[in-house]
Amino acid sequence: MASEESKPILYSYFRSTASWRVRIALEWKGIDYEYRNIDLVSGAQQSEEYLKLNPYGKVPLFITKDGKAIAQSEAIIEYLEEIKPERPMLPKGACHRAQVRSIAQVIACDIHPLQNLSVLKHVAGPDMEKRSEWGNYWTSKGFEGLESMLEQTAGTYCLGDNITMADMFLVPMIFNAQRWKVDMKPFPLITRISNTLMTLPEFKLTHPHRQVDCPDELKETGL
Amino acid sequence: MASEESKPILYSYFRSTASWRVRIALEWKGIDYEYRNIDLVSGAQQSEEYLKLNPYGKVPLFITKDGKAIAQSEAIIEYLEEIKPERPMLPKGACHRAQVRSIAQVIACDIHPLQNLSVLKHVAGPDMEKRSEWGNYWTSKGFEGLESMLEQTAGTYCLGDNITMADMFLVPMIFNAQRWKVDMKPFPLITRISNTLMTLPEFKLTHPHRQVDCPDELKETGL
Repeated sequence: MASEESKPILYSYFRSTASWRVRIALEWKGIDYEYRNIDLVSGAQQSEEYLKLNPYGKVPLFITKDGKAIAQSEAIIEYLEEIKPERPMLPKGACHRAQVRSIAQVIACDIHPLQNLSVLKHVAGPDMEKRSEWGNYWTSKGFEGLESMLEQTAGTYCLGDNITMADMFLVPMIFNAQRWKVDMKPFPLITRISNTLMTLPEFKLTHPHRQVDCPDELKETGL
Repeated sequence: MASEESKPILYSYFRSTASWRVRIALEWKGIDYEYRNIDLVSGAQQSEEYLKLNPYGKVPLFITKDGKAIAQSEAIIEYLEEIKPERPMLPKGACHRAQVRSIAQVIACDIHPLQNLSVLKHVAGPDMEKRSEWGNYWTSKGFEGLESMLEQTAGTYCLGDNITMADMFLVPMIFNAQRWKVDMKPFPLITRISNTLMTLPEFKLTHPHRQVDCPDELKETGL
């Protein structure tokens, strides 16, 4: 049990885009952590044991070195930024910080929530084609607005030429878009920025298809 | 045009819960602002003029005194906290701050997005009963988890005995829950905290039914 005392823990699911955001941030900050798999498909997030840690029953969940539990990806990432300011994920200046949070929240509060597994199940049951159609519709719609936002803010990355929290929210969203077969042609900025980011080790190493809980058949086709 | 130069501007819609969050924060901080109505029902958020200001086409949008535009309620509120730290909306201590952000984000990223007007229209068209059923389902489901979270954090308010950003996200959510006729009996903590908050001027004055763009017939029954 020594590792539990010395390392923080991330409860994650390989395909959860919100978990991926946190994996990127941890890698970015160079924080070593223990990965614990919560299999969303089998319903592990609703087990009695897990609900004691995270009463809201979702991933990701971060357990600090002192054993404090933090839910919600952006709350975790802001926490990491506060305890370890080196390699900042937010720029200096209140206005720039607000712009970065805006982009992250467009993804976290507008685009992503509609493609949570619980929503897909409710809307389409086991019908994978219907799930994909729903996911495609909302992602495409969200990307239209996001592309326009980025036209006002982007340089090499979402805000200018430094990597920020916004980029850590963008890349996992593209992974979902690929699952829903979203036509990316109308979104050249989103595409260019995420392609650039995906050449960086922090984004590559944390890819869903490189996680221990990723099924082997996906691992082969992943990257 | 003098007011534009001296006061920040909030683009808001009376019934938008995300706009209400920001109205509470502005009132809490004692920041005077100009209220500009964006009528979501008539589609004003998609007008060419508004899209220039906010390419994502949603409310709220905050224009700083220097004319910088910030979208997304939580980004605006974090900005207000950074530029005016008096009457803090986040506690001291990284862990407590994370807990407050967690609660706010459960509301902003999990519960609220499913009841955005665009989603309601897509799912139920003009069928108000079907809209209400959908809103009721997702709010009730979300409140189950939120109530359990609050069991671990609440005092008088969402986190202990000081008002935080989490409380500013909670109250507007209850307003929506009432619209969907959510049975609040299973949620005694949510109910007790929001009732306490609604006795305070910052929450009362910013209520949807007290905004200039609220139709008169609602104003009469509102509070």
